[in-house]
Amino acid sequence: MNIDGTHFRTIWLSDDGWSVEVIDQTLLPHVFEVMRLTTVAEAAAAISTMVVRGAPLIGATAAYGMALAMHEDASDQALAAAYTALLATRPTAVNLRWALDDMQTRLGAVAEDRRRELAYARAAEICDDDVATCQGIGRHGGALIKDAYDRKGGKDVVNVLTHCNAGWLATVDWGTALAPIYTAHNAGIPVHVWVDETRPRNQGAALTAYELGSHGVPHTVIVDNAGGHLMQHGMVDMCITGTDRTTAHGDVCNKIGTYLKALAAHDNNVPFYVGLPHSTIDWTLGDGVAGIPIEQRDGTEVSHISGVTDGGAGATVRLVPKGAAVGNYAFDVTPARLVTGLITERGVCPASRDGLVGLYPEQAASAA
Amino acid sequence: MNIDGTHFRTIWLSDDGWSVEVIDQTLLPHVFEVMRLTTVAEAAAAISTMVVRGAPLIGATAAYGMALAMHEDASDQALAAAYTALLATRPTAVNLRWALDDMQTRLGAVAEDRRRELAYARAAEICDDDVATCQGIGRHGGALIKDAYDRKGGKDVVNVLTHCNAGWLATVDWGTALAPIYTAHNAGIPVHVWVDETRPRNQGAALTAYELGSHGVPHTVIVDNAGGHLMQHGMVDMCITGTDRTTAHGDVCNKIGTYLKALAAHDNNVPFYVGLPHSTIDWTLGDGVAGIPIEQRDGTEVSHISGVTDGGAGATVRLVPKGAAVGNYAFDVTPARLVTGLITERGVCPASRDGLVGLYPEQAASAA
Repeated sequence: MNIDGTHFRTIWLSDDGWSVEVIDQTLLPHVFEVMRLTTVAEAAAAISTMVVRGAPLIGATAAYGMALAMHEDASDQALAAAYTALLATRPTAVNLRWALDDMQTRLGAVAEDRRRELAYARAAEICDDDVATCQGIGRHGGALIKDAYDRKGGKDVVNVLTHCNAGWLATVDWGTALAPIYTAHNAGIPVHVWVDETRPRNQGAALTAYELGSHGVPHTVIVDNAGGHLMQHGMVDMCITGTDRTTAHGDVCNKIGTYLKALAAHDNNVPFYVGLPHSTIDWTLGDGVAGIPIEQRDGTEVSHISGVTDGGAGATVRLVPKGAAVGNYAFDVTPARLVTGLITERGVCPASRDGLVGLYPEQAASAA
Repeated sequence: MNIDGTHFRTIWLSDDGWSVEVIDQTLLPHVFEVMRLTTVAEAAAAISTMVVRGAPLIGATAAYGMALAMHEDASDQALAAAYTALLATRPTAVNLRWALDDMQTRLGAVAEDRRRELAYARAAEICDDDVATCQGIGRHGGALIKDAYDRKGGKDVVNVLTHCNAGWLATVDWGTALAPIYTAHNAGIPVHVWVDETRPRNQGAALTAYELGSHGVPHTVIVDNAGGHLMQHGMVDMCITGTDRTTAHGDVCNKIGTYLKALAAHDNNVPFYVGLPHSTIDWTLGDGVAGIPIEQRDGTEVSHISGVTDGGAGATVRLVPKGAAVGNYAFDVTPARLVTGLITERGVCPASRDGLVGLYPEQAASAA
């Protein structure tokens, strides 16, 4: 999408034809800076320090990390070492392992002297595939926003609430939850986005607000507590969030707090949609609340917060009494009964086994 | 309640017998400091700058502000000027107006030379009445915690989730929502409190965590997003919040985000209680969602946040992109259908007109 009128992806090949450039997301929203990656070690560090984040972008960066490794040394040993180093960065990320397995299988199957070229070609393809997937989500979800606009008489702004960042910064371009919003906005439909700040890591206040603002989409940052009140008063036409993992029954594991918004949407007859590429679907899992273990992260993400002072300097402050006990649950599970529909690259379906298998009939045998 | 073993109220008469001391709550949880108030102007400033906050404590401070005015000058003119100055500090605070009207009526009815003594006596009485009210809420709500403890077999910790600060720092002592917790804790029942940080002003992370920690009540600070997940997994035995305004039908207007926790409690069969003194009941109002206007506050409360650096210095940082639009809705309304019971100084009742009139039969004629 655009940053002040210039089109960017989150990752791209440098003009030199071999090194890779990414947006340094650790500095957003306060500083926009491009980081150049020249070795597999730098690619691994970019993933582990969250210079790049979001499952699809992590996968794309890992693929280019393999290409950087092959650029330097295309031996079997180097291939294995690159795989190991990149996998260790974020061991639980599904797309990371998928991209690495894909690259390793393809590269291992060809002679050393063909690996470098193949690696760059496949990494580029993985990026393009992600963009196409997100555009598909955008097309199908954008139609839902268009419908809402038409239902409002074709003149009022459509208000969409989102939680966390499932935008283009989490993918290669377009995003998942935000792709429908960009699609509608680009088509001239007036959209306004309520942006949950998304404590504790504030991906909404930092990243979602940044990318919507940079592309020119009207939006308002609110605390995570506010959405229920807005929905009670007819100020939200639909919710669209992303998902880290979707069960075969349509339960959605996403950033902590998603469940609370889905409850409020249900209580106020506000449609609650989830945008997802098929890669987040775990076909082996049925009940997400019982079956998905929830990661607990470092308490300092809750007790401390970072931003910039009026002088522009970065600073981190403590918010709680010294030594206070802190809990930090990273995700929650929204039961399928609260989800109006799943927006995938193949279309919109009910959040249910039948709905998902209807869109992905090839998974009927494996679906829990 | 106690601060590291020493008993404190939030407001008290100094040893000199005429000036007034309060805990400076703007410095909490990072610094504990007592501020001495010697004039009505200082009392007014303490209210308007939120050195003292919480409806009952604001009322008590206003009452002592009138006493300080009478200490200096007991004329009719001084009485009227003190009333005006104190009322202007927080014009929408119900207890403030009530305390000022009460003081003005009583003082205006006696000769000038009796006003000083009467003002101090009545201010002390207002404080003691507030303590007695909160103790009543504590007694009735504490019994609910005792019941939960017994239901768990009398050995497991009772986990209570609370939102915002409705503790002793918001009153003269004990608090409203937290009075049941202190009562149970003091009686030896093992209680653990999940403390919502309560964005945007973080009264939970700052004040509730501070006062529970100082009194020795086990607690864990969580982001406002986390409560739904905890309730899904049986980690919350009951919720208790305060209320700024309660309608005659039992709708509860409280800090933004309370409604989301009530929805999660309802979805998971977790009892959701509200602790309140009768003074928060608005007998003229039925439907709170339709009838209560929600204050919108300055956006900088959302976009910026204050804390202390590792070096111990206070600092304020910006969290959102420069110039980002921000919305700041201060309260929301939890419909009575989501409230298990109202804990008042007279007992626990259903959140309904019948329930409230049952406890306050003298209001039957005025109840909406």
